Formats: sequence, C-alpha cells, structure tokens
Amino acid sequence: MHLVIIGGGPAGYTAAFDAARRGMRVTLAEQSSLGGTCLNHGCIPTKTMRASADALDMARRMAEFGVTGCASPAIDPALVKKRKNGVIDTLRGGLQKTAASLGIELLHGQAQIQGPGKIVVRGESGLVETDCDAILIAAGSRELELPGLPFDHKFILSSSDALELENIPGRLLIVGGGVIGCELACIFRAFGSEVTIVEGQERLLPIPGIDADISSLLSREMRKRKIKMHLAATLKDVRVEDGQVLGTLAASPFAEQKAPFREQPLSADMVFVTVGRSPATEGLGLAECGIKTDRRGWIEADDHLRTSVPGIYAAGDILGPSHIMLAHVAAVEGLAVVEGLAGGDGRMDYSAVPSAIFTGPEIGCVGLSESQAREKYANVACGTTQVRELGKAQAMGELPGFFKIIANGDDGAILGVQLAGAHASDILAEATLAINAAVSLEGLASTIHAHPTLAEGMWEAARGALISCKGGK
Amino acid sequence: MHLVIIGGGPAGYTAAFDAARRGMRVTLAEQSSLGGTCLNHGCIPTKTMRASADALDMARRMAEFGVTGCASPAIDPALVKKRKNGVIDTLRGGLQKTAASLGIELLHGQAQIQGPGKIVVRGESGLVETDCDAILIAAGSRELELPGLPFDHKFILSSSDALELENIPGRLLIVGGGVIGCELACIFRAFGSEVTIVEGQERLLPIPGIDADISSLLSREMRKRKIKMHLAATLKDVRVEDGQVLGTLAASPFAEQKAPFREQPLSADMVFVTVGRSPATEGLGLAECGIKTDRRGWIEADDHLRTSVPGIYAAGDILGPSHIMLAHVAAVEGLAVVEGLAGGDGRMDYSAVPSAIFTGPEIGCVGLSESQAREKYANVACGTTQVRELGKAQAMGELPGFFKIIANGDDGAILGVQLAGAHASDILAEATLAINAAVSLEGLASTIHAHPTLAEGMWEAARGALISCKGGK
Repeated sequence: MHLVIIGGGPAGYTAAFDAARRGMRVTLAEQSSLGGTCLNHGCIPTKTMRASADALDMARRMAEFGVTGCASPAIDPALVKKRKNGVIDTLRGGLQKTAASLGIELLHGQAQIQGPGKIVVRGESGLVETDCDAILIAAGSRELELPGLPFDHKFILSSSDALELENIPGRLLIVGGGVIGCELACIFRAFGSEVTIVEGQERLLPIPGIDADISSLLSREMRKRKIKMHLAATLKDVRVEDGQVLGTLAASPFAEQKAPFREQPLSADMVFVTVGRSPATEGLGLAECGIKTDRRGWIEADDHLRTSVPGIYAAGDILGPSHIMLAHVAAVEGLAVVEGLAGGDGRMDYSAVPSAIFTGPEIGCVGLSESQAREKYANVACGTTQVRELGKAQAMGELPGFFKIIANGDDGAILGVQLAGAHASDILAEATLAINAAVSLEGLASTIHAHPTLAEGMWEAARGALISCKGGK
Repeated sequence: MHLVIIGGGPAGYTAAFDAARRGMRVTLAEQSSLGGTCLNHGCIPTKTMRASADALDMARRMAEFGVTGCASPAIDPALVKKRKNGVIDTLRGGLQKTAASLGIELLHGQAQIQGPGKIVVRGESGLVETDCDAILIAAGSRELELPGLPFDHKFILSSSDALELENIPGRLLIVGGGVIGCELACIFRAFGSEVTIVEGQERLLPIPGIDADISSLLSREMRKRKIKMHLAATLKDVRVEDGQVLGTLAASPFAEQKAPFREQPLSADMVFVTVGRSPATEGLGLAECGIKTDRRGWIEADDHLRTSVPGIYAAGDILGPSHIMLAHVAAVEGLAVVEGLAGGDGRMDYSAVPSAIFTGPEIGCVGLSESQAREKYANVACGTTQVRELGKAQAMGELPGFFKIIANGDDGAILGVQLAGAHASDILAEATLAINAAVSLEGLASTIHAHPTLAEGMWEAARGALISCKGGK
C-alpha cells in the first residue's frame, strides 16, 4: 500500500506516522513547513505567546504571593517572538526526525491530483510524478480575507501576522470575537495594548457548542481587564490614513438589533482580522478530478472521510466547519483514514469533540451546550460549581470560572460539560472521557477526586447535577 | 435521626453538610478550628506556599518568557504567611457559613463518648451532654514525634510549625522523604534554603502505590535544584548547640544497606520532622466504650466504617494508613457513613483513590504502580509518554515529567496511572475516572483529547500501552 498525503499539518503528519508504523509506504507533500497552521501559525505560537502573557500577568501579581523584586514588569516582543520561533523549531524538528525514522518520503512543493492514484508535485527541484494506491488530501485552510478589510500586513493584519509582531500596538482593534480573536485580545491586552473587539453576532464565541454562560463570563472577565467590546456590530469604510486605521462602527447584518444602532467612528493603530478560514484547495486539481466540494469550497466527505472519487480521502480543516476545524479532530481524522485503508472500520465519530480556548480564564467545552441540550431533551439537569469555591483555586489565587455539567434529567446521561477557569483545558479531558465512555452523573460523582485540586469542581458539579436530576428539575 | 460528629475536618464537615441536607439533625464537636488538619495545617496552607514558590520560580524565569523588570526576585515570608492565613480564613468562613445555613449545631470543645448515643463535650462554656442516634468519630491525626527528635518548635519543627515560619532557614534538614517532606523540601528550596532530606527507606516517596519511576524522576529533579538527599539513612544523636542543630547521619534500620554505611556529622539551622502521623484519640473514651483500635491506636472499622460498637462510626485519618489517610478519602468516608445512616449501601471502595503530590514537578498516582501490577498480573503492559514531547508543554516551558499507564496486557484493563509534570494533579482526574468506571485502554485511546493541552499525554500513553498490549509484551 502506497499512500500519498497532501499537507503536513496535524491530519497529514498523524496519518503519515500511523501509516508508516503499520508498514505502508508513505509520501508526504507539503508546500510550506511541516506542522501546518497549528504548529506554524496557530495553536502552538499563540500558546507560547499566552505563556508570556501569563508570565507577565503573574509578574504584576508578585506582591500578592509575597514575592518582591518585580516592580516594573514589561514585555519585550522581540524576545517573545524569539521564544516562539524556538519552540516551533523544536517541535518541527521532532516531526522531521520522526518522519525520517519512519522512512516517510517528504516532497516539498505544490501537489496536484491527476486522478485516483496519480499525483504530481511541483517543487524547487522540479516535478515529481507519483503513482500510489490512495491519496489523502489534508491541505488545510487559510485565513479568510474580508472584502472591505484586505490584509496589508502592516496596519491590517491576519492572525498569522499578529504572531510575528515585534512591536505592541497601542490601540488594537480586533474584528471577530471568535476563538482566535478572543485569544489574541487577551494576549495583547496583557502585553499592554488597548484592545477593542468588534463581533458581528450578539455574543463573544458565538458557537452553538459553547454555552451562553461561558460567553457571559468571558465578557465579564474581559471587561475587568478593560477590553472593550462591540457586539452585533461590524466595521465599514475602513482606510489607513496618517499611520492609523480609521473606520465606522456599524450595525452587523448578521445580528438582530434590539435598538437603533448609532454608528460611530473608530480608530486604531492596528487591526487584526480574525473572522474565519477558507479552504486551501487552489492548485490541487479538485474540479478536474471530479472531487466534490460544497458551495464554499470545502471538500465533501462521508463518515469514512471518502471523497466523491474512490481512493481519494480528505481530513482536517479542508473538510470545513461541518467536520469541526480543530487540530485534534484533524489528527483523529487522519488516523481514521489510515485505519480504513488498513482494513479497519475507520469511521469518524464527532459526538465527543473537546474544544479548548486559551483566553483569560481558559475555557473547555465538550458535548452539548445547555441550549443545545434543551432543544433536544425535555428534561435537562445542570450542576454548576464556581471555581472560587475550591480550596485549590483559593490557594493558587485563580478564582474566576465555573464547572457546568449538563445532563439528561431522566437517566443521568452526561450531555455536555462547559468549563472556565485555570487548567480548564486539561480538566476537559475527564469531561470528554465521561461523555465518550458514557459514564453517567452517578459514575462521575462516585469517582474520588484528589484534594486539593481544581478537578474537584467536576465532582462537585456532578453532585449538584445529580441532586437537580433527583429533584426532577 | 440525630448524628453527632466528633471532628471538623474533611470527614466531619462533609458528613455534617450531607447529613443536614438529608434532613438529619447534626451536632459537630471540634476542639480547634473547623477544617481540620487539611485546611489549617496541611493541604491548603502548603498549597498557598506552593503558589508563592511557583510565583518565585516564575519570577526567576521571566527573561525566558520575554518579560523584563524582575531582576531580583526574593521571598518575603511574612507576606507568604499573611496570604496563607487569608486563604484559610476565607475557606473556614465558607465552612462556617454553610454549617450555619444548614442549621448544624457546632460545639467547641473536647468530646468524650460515654457509650452508644451518649456524648459529652467539655468546652469553654462548660459541659454539654448530648443524646443521639449515631456517632461519627472523625477526630483525625497528629504529627508523629520521634523519640530522638522531640519538637522544640524553634529548631526542631513539625510540618505545622513549618507553615508558620516568618524567616527562611539557611540550612534546612528534613527528616522524612515522604509526601510532606518532599513538598516542603521543594517549597523551601524555592524560597532559598539549602535543603537536605534524610529518608529511612531506599527511595523518596516510599509508598507502594507510587511507582519507582516517579521516585527516580523526583530525585533527579530535586538534584537539579540542588536539594541533597540521604536515602536509607537516619539521624541520631541530635542536639541543639549554639543556635544550630547537630546530629549524626547513620544507617537506617528500615533499609537494606548495599555497602557499609559511613556515618557523618550533619548540621543545620533548622530541622523539619515529617515522618508520619498518630491517631488523635486522646480523651475520646474509646477504651471505656469498648471501641477497638489496632496496636498503633487507629480505630478499626469495617467496609461500612462501623466500629466495634453499634451506632458508632469512624471516618478519616483516625482509621489509619490501612484506610489511606487523605483528605478526599476522608470526605468520601464521611459521605459513606451518612449514606449508610440514610438507609443506603454506604460501603467504601478504595480501589481508585487518587494521590496528588505538589512537588516540583507535580505528581499524581492512582491504582497500582507497575511493581504492584506485576505482582498481581502475569501480563502487564505499560505506555509512557514524556511531557516534553507535548506541544503544550513546550509552549508553556514546563518540560519535566511523564505519563505512564499500566494495564493488564490480556484485556487492556487500566490498572494504574502514574503522572509527573505540570497539572498532573488535575489530569489525574481523568485517570481516576478511567479506572473507577472501568474504561479500557481502547476506550481511553478512542477519546479525542484537545490540542494543545497537557492531557494529550494521557492519549499518547494509552496508545503506547495499547501497542504494547497487542505486541503481547
């Protein structure tokens, strides 16, 4: 079995490593750097910057912990960038080493599918034609550019540009209050920028799987940090004049306006546009091969990630939002394709996909939000515990946040878990396991949780939800 | 139902709150402060100090994260103590408020059991006699004093004394390399003390449920921090002279000596003795009532926590090490007693008890260690992932540690999980749930773990163990 994979992001390299370990011959074609958006322009660099923001936040709080000698903490963006690049190099080096040790053939260039089992890669060293048994398209996505807000990479930046900055903008406008926009808002606010978010919908993180309570909490915490927010709003008439960005705040066409919208001028030193992604399908030859895409250009695939053309599979961001665009989903999709090729089931199950958001505080969500649960079930029981009620949270001085467990009141099945607070992204693993393994509220509440830990909040919330179930509420 | 509880620690207050919520009349007798050892002299104050140690460690690393202005970080022990007392006050206030809102009668004083259903409490306001339907003894434990090392609370300190220090000893000797000794060693080393640990057995954390690999890692990390260790050793001829403690390092009677032990003199500015606990049973009238204790004085109880006298139950530390002396076990024991009194099963299950240890790095263990598993099962499969392999760990700059999953190679049942590294105590919750709910390796490996998080190590380790199972290793 010879598998050719297009794209070296999480879907691509995870599939490549697994296929090679199973004894398949693997060729991996990547135009840019191994690691994809996640490693090079996404999850990892934002988390290195988050680590610097956390360090700076902690430096400002040192006196509270009895530490002296940090009177005037400040950020040095050049050092932050250097550290970011160092971490990326380390991780990319690890991927390259693994690929080499597994005998994976790496081709650097633009891949074009000629048909089932036929691929051409145009790279620096010319053109390589390859015959193979199966093709996996994992070419990923790119930042979406808005017509009225074209990236100039100096005043109007993409999220990738934002990660390369060596100066901190004084007044920063972020268009898009989704995951990336909110993460960058928290980081740059910590770094000292005056941050304003413009979000087209009525709340931050306007994603159905994220509870309204999470959005409210995040808005409240952001307001405490003096991040300004304009919801149900959009930015129009944007222009760069005299070294600053000018525009007009206007009513969003995507939101219902409760009151007449009063337009107002906005100005900033820099704008980050974080409004979504588009499929990185150019040059792949999809149309020529008859590989179906939806009207926005995302590749269509079934539960086994088979495209419309036999022998050609797709995984990762290129499947679009209907398949959830997250690095860990991409990786598991890559594994599913390889499992299918190896004769296994290879069906993807999207019922327990966790989302981690690295704002201040951290957020973790899995399964249904409360409103999704109430649409689907007649009897929904919730249990909520505030982070500040936990001894460990008080000891750490990390108070904001909550644990919310959403269950079917009839049988105690856990439908969703919504977390905000320190370590939420790691505590999320327990929540995801509970849902994936169909552990009931009773099972979670009968599991001893170590004291003093933050994860005790899961236990308390499960006990609360159980009482709420028994109360028939 | 009138329940009288002796002791206001985790077992006592958890039982009291649950019983009151179920409509029982509850009287709680406590000699000292609500919250017990855990809140007042144990888990919580060490964790507030750990938070200060973490802050100081971070202050020393600020340049690495691109933060300037923390050139000369130092600890102010008076501020650390003030913060600790503030956190204790907040949490104790929470307990008092809950007790009041539930109508729990609090008696301040020494309780003496007269017999089933009969108790006398001697307090400041005199003597209160109470008749009741059931008694729960949750009086806890005290620090064990060694004959050759009596506490003088100035040079030779208990762990409680250590938490009240307003000056940092220059040269600190810690006798006992168990959980408390290791936690204090890491904290005081961060605060600037030169720390030496003397441990009677061959390794740090000499507890069967803690893997030898964990002890090795902790020793290695401590050595990096320049903490000295003498294993299989004891301290004799201890005396205080000219404001310092002098003694002789000698062979431990509890360890096998591989080579002849060369005795050597040791001196220090202060000694912490952290060698164990003894039952706080004085004055309770156990012998007079016929309540059986073991030869070391711990109360004997069955799986339902019934003592030898009908209507009298025991929970928490007072049951001794055979019932695992941890705050969260105590709390669950308290709940089990109340459940039994309310007509439920009330049986304690100790098969999935997590242990969290707040050293640097953090440690979390649940279920069997590898050596325990190999004693019990013919075919044991392990999967290990190093923390440094994770993108999140690199982004955070938190590299030491590992995830080790120990499974039955025949059926993939997870027998134990041993964790070391950042957030290990919270990731432990997923491990505990897996064991408690009998989720197999396959179940854990098929659970999507969010990227980039530290909990991904659980997924990687599960996948590794699964391969090791299939390989029949």
